[in-house]
Parts: sequence; structure tokens; C-alpha cells
Amino acid sequence: MSRKIRAAVVGYGNIGKYVVEALQSSPDLEIAGIVRRDAANVPAELKEYDVVNSISQLEDVDVAILCTPTRSVEKFALECLELGVNTVDSFDIHGQIVQLRASLDEAAKKHNAVSIISAGWDPGSDSVIRTLMEAMAPRGITYTNFGPGMSMGHTVAVKAITGVKAALSMTIPTGTGVHRRMVYIELEKGHDFQTVAQAIKADDYFVHDETHVFQVEDVEALKDMGHGVLMERKGVSGNTQNQLFKFDMRINNPALTAQVLVAVARASMKQQPGAYTMIEIPVVDLLPGEKEAWIRKLV
Amino acid sequence: MSRKIRAAVVGYGNIGKYVVEALQSSPDLEIAGIVRRDAANVPAELKEYDVVNSISQLEDVDVAILCTPTRSVEKFALECLELGVNTVDSFDIHGQIVQLRASLDEAAKKHNAVSIISAGWDPGSDSVIRTLMEAMAPRGITYTNFGPGMSMGHTVAVKAITGVKAALSMTIPTGTGVHRRMVYIELEKGHDFQTVAQAIKADDYFVHDETHVFQVEDVEALKDMGHGVLMERKGVSGNTQNQLFKFDMRINNPALTAQVLVAVARASMKQQPGAYTMIEIPVVDLLPGEKEAWIRKLV
Repeated sequence: MSRKIRAAVVGYGNIGKYVVEALQSSPDLEIAGIVRRDAANVPAELKEYDVVNSISQLEDVDVAILCTPTRSVEKFALECLELGVNTVDSFDIHGQIVQLRASLDEAAKKHNAVSIISAGWDPGSDSVIRTLMEAMAPRGITYTNFGPGMSMGHTVAVKAITGVKAALSMTIPTGTGVHRRMVYIELEKGHDFQTVAQAIKADDYFVHDETHVFQVEDVEALKDMGHGVLMERKGVSGNTQNQLFKFDMRINNPALTAQVLVAVARASMKQQPGAYTMIEIPVVDLLPGEKEAWIRKLV
Repeated sequence: MSRKIRAAVVGYGNIGKYVVEALQSSPDLEIAGIVRRDAANVPAELKEYDVVNSISQLEDVDVAILCTPTRSVEKFALECLELGVNTVDSFDIHGQIVQLRASLDEAAKKHNAVSIISAGWDPGSDSVIRTLMEAMAPRGITYTNFGPGMSMGHTVAVKAITGVKAALSMTIPTGTGVHRRMVYIELEKGHDFQTVAQAIKADDYFVHDETHVFQVEDVEALKDMGHGVLMERKGVSGNTQNQLFKFDMRINNPALTAQVLVAVARASMKQQPGAYTMIEIPVVDLLPGEKEAWIRKLV
């Protein structure tokens, strides 16, 4: 049996916890350690692992799975790549992916390492399906409908508004890629609900969408990690119209992100040095074991 | 602007016709010629192209798109690969794919060419989605439900039975990968319908499925080229149960097969010498033009 791939988990928030579980259930990967700011904080489930505050303190790391906030992905990725350690991340700012890829591609090639970026479910596995649907019907429109599910970005935006004590922003699909925002807030004492609601609706994150704001007693009681996506394409293959494609999933959001990260961590071991998005790597590389067995089973 | 990829169409039956259309609507490919047994038979829509009876008679062919019956794919592929011409096919005998890949891999490497096999929709694009779903939820079951649509293989099997003059076998999905066969036949004079129906139901192609046989006046009047697939997976990401995935498409069968063949013909130009199934090539390679533009648009 071949040596297991040694993966470090960088960041131990919500995604990091699910990544540890996904690594524990993977036959071909093992946990090289956990990197977190406060390395003295070792919860029970991490007792058997090295918990450190820098990737450089861990030995024989093949790949670092970055579970940090999206805005610090580049910094941590560069730090790992400079040590010759592969990185994977779920960087999710769509407009900056090409730029991140260029930056990490240079570092990866220089240090003979591999980086797979924006590898969650969107961007990530959804991107693979969007690309495949584009190839199957080159003319047409693809709509990506998110939800129902909690939007992290929108929730953070609401929390930043004066008078908001706690918040939850749910994304509700209304079809053809249009979304309604359902916002639930706890109000700070001394603030007026109508004023706060107007401020939320005027925020950049909400101003273009149908937005409803509700005051609640307890935001925590409303939260669940379920999410979903419905991607639809109607298009043309050759000259043939009305080709219809639909991909629909209902999932635990951080659990799926974590599982995709673990799959691309594995795939990173099979690529040439450089940085990649998921549409640039063969899907079979996401799976453990012998390629031929998967061809037999899945093709 | 770079030179166009020159593709030869080998075989001009149902799929070959749709491949010509898909090539005509592709910005980066051009038709190097059509190879068919009877090269003197040039229908109006092929007047502007070279129609020959051997691939060796065409010049500057980059890739041959094999639209021959599945059982003669290997023979034609080897003939092309020996000339250093890439090949793509939609070979669809699931149990023999690994074997075909091994045979063509050897020939392709020897002649510095690329072969992409079993590249239709199933096997083909469905295989890519099955693989991705497996990676997203490593434990669980995927069901592939075909139809409603005409099964070529089953229709041919019915036609081979004594007393059948013309036939159509429709595949009807009843869920969890189980299919009903609806068989429509025209009877040869002097044959008994019940006897023929029993023979069909006892045939290897039908004996394991719920099969209904009907006698009709005119099989041609019942045929349409629409088909569909519903792939469903319920599985586990890490330790998290009940992750639900669904891919559903409703398509013109030969038009989609042809479009996938044209996309892999393009992708063949970007691979290292050897033979591949679709799960072994990056999906972005299926698309024309600059990779970075697609990353910006689709990731």
C-alpha cells in the first residue's frame, strides 16, 4: 500500500471542522496537523493531532487545506507554496479568481508545487457542471439559482449596519437566476426597526434584489446549514434547439465544501506545478485509488 | 487568428449528419472531409466537401470523428492513429471500454496522437457528472435512469427476432435505475403475434426487464429522437448524511452525441499522446478559445 497523502488543515472554523471529518473518512489521506491562530486552544476532537500556529511547524505536509476567511486565502497560500506545500482553497470572490490564479500560479511553479483554487461548490463543483453544459449546448443561457440557504456574505453585510445586533440573510431563488433576500435581525436597544430596515435595503448587497427584513427575538434559532442550487441551461447542440439540462442539489453547505476541498487536495498530488481552478483538472483525479477501476465503474 | 482544427467525419449515418452540423457551427473547427463506404454517394448538403472512402485520401486531418457503428470503432480508430490522426468516438459498450482504451492508448502513444473514447452522453458527459457526484459524496448510491427514449441496442435486438418486420424499443425509467421496455413491432406475414412477443420477452436484452410488446401498423410514425436521463445520488460528505444530487436532461439524442464528439475533438488537440475517457480530461478543454475567458465566465 502506498503512503497516505498528508494534509494540514489551516483554519479551524466551521469549514475546518468539516474538513477534519472528511479527512478522517478518506482512505488515502491523513491529518498532518491543524494550524490555527490560537494553538493552545485544542478542543477534544483534535487531541490526537498536532495543533500549531504556523504551517512551518508541521512535518512532511503534502498539501494544506485552507479553511481561512476568503480574503486571507492568498496570504496563507503563498506562505505554504513557498515551503513547497500544495494548497487548496474555496476562495469565492468570483471577480478576483483569475487574479488569484495568476498570483498563485507563479508561486507554485517557482516552488514546484500545485495550488487548486476556488474549490468549493460554487465556485467549484458547480463550475465543472456549468462548463460541461456549455460544451453540450454551446448556444443558450445557463441560470444558476441558489438556495434556499443562508448567505454568509449577505449576513456579514447586515451585521455591519448600525443598530443590528445579530442577523441572518437567507437567499431564496425565484427562478432565472433572480433571488429574493429574506433578512432576519435582532435589533440593538434604542434603534428603530424601520430605519434599520431601510438602511439594509439601501446597502450595495441588497439594493438590486427584492429584500424583506424581519425583526426576530433570536436569530440563532432560525439557522440551519442546509443549502441548495438549481442550475438550468436551455440551448442548442449544433443546429438542434431546445436541449434541456438541469442540475439540482440539496446539501449541508460546509460539509460539501469540505468534501470538495479534500477531493481537490488529493487531485493536487496528480497535477503539474502551477495553479488551477476545478474546470482545469480531470474529474477522475478527485477520487482515490486506481483510475482504471473508476473508468470501469463510472464511465 | 490561429488556424482552424481540421476534422474528418468518418461514417455518415444519423450521428455523422449531426456532427457535420455541429462542426459547421463551431468557430474553431473546419471539415477536412467525409469518409464513407460509398464515396460516390454525395448528398446535396455535402457538395462543398471532399467525400472519400478512406481517411488516407484526405489532407491535413488533425482529428477523425468516428461516427461508425460502435463495433467497428476500434478498427477505424487504429487506422487513423497509425496515420498520426487523433480520434474521438462514442463507443458505448460499457463492459469493453477499459479494453478499448488500452488498445488505442498503445497505438496513440506510438504514433504521437490522441484518442478520446466513449465520448457521447452515456458513456460521456453523464460519466463526468457521475464522477463528480461520487467525489462530492463518496459514500452513497447513484442511480442512472434513462428515457423516455428509443434504445438503439434494444431495437436492433428486436429486429433480429424471427417474424419481426420493423421495430422500436422505447426505454421508460421507473426509478432507481430500473427500466421498463415498451416494444412496438410490425409483424411479418404469416407470423403469430403472441409467439413473437414471447420470443422478444425471452431475449437476453429483455428477459430481466418488465417488457410490453405491441403490434402496430407503422413503426416509423412512432419514432422521435428525443431522449433523457435522470441521475440521482444520495450520499455522505465526510460524516454528513443525506446530501442530495440530481442531474436531469431532455435532449435530441444524436444532436447531443454529435456536439459532445465535436467538443472532445477540440479537446484532443490539448492532451498528451495517449487514449482517454472523458473523466480523464479537464472540462475546460471542451470549449473553444482562451481558457482564462472561460474561467472568468464559468468558475
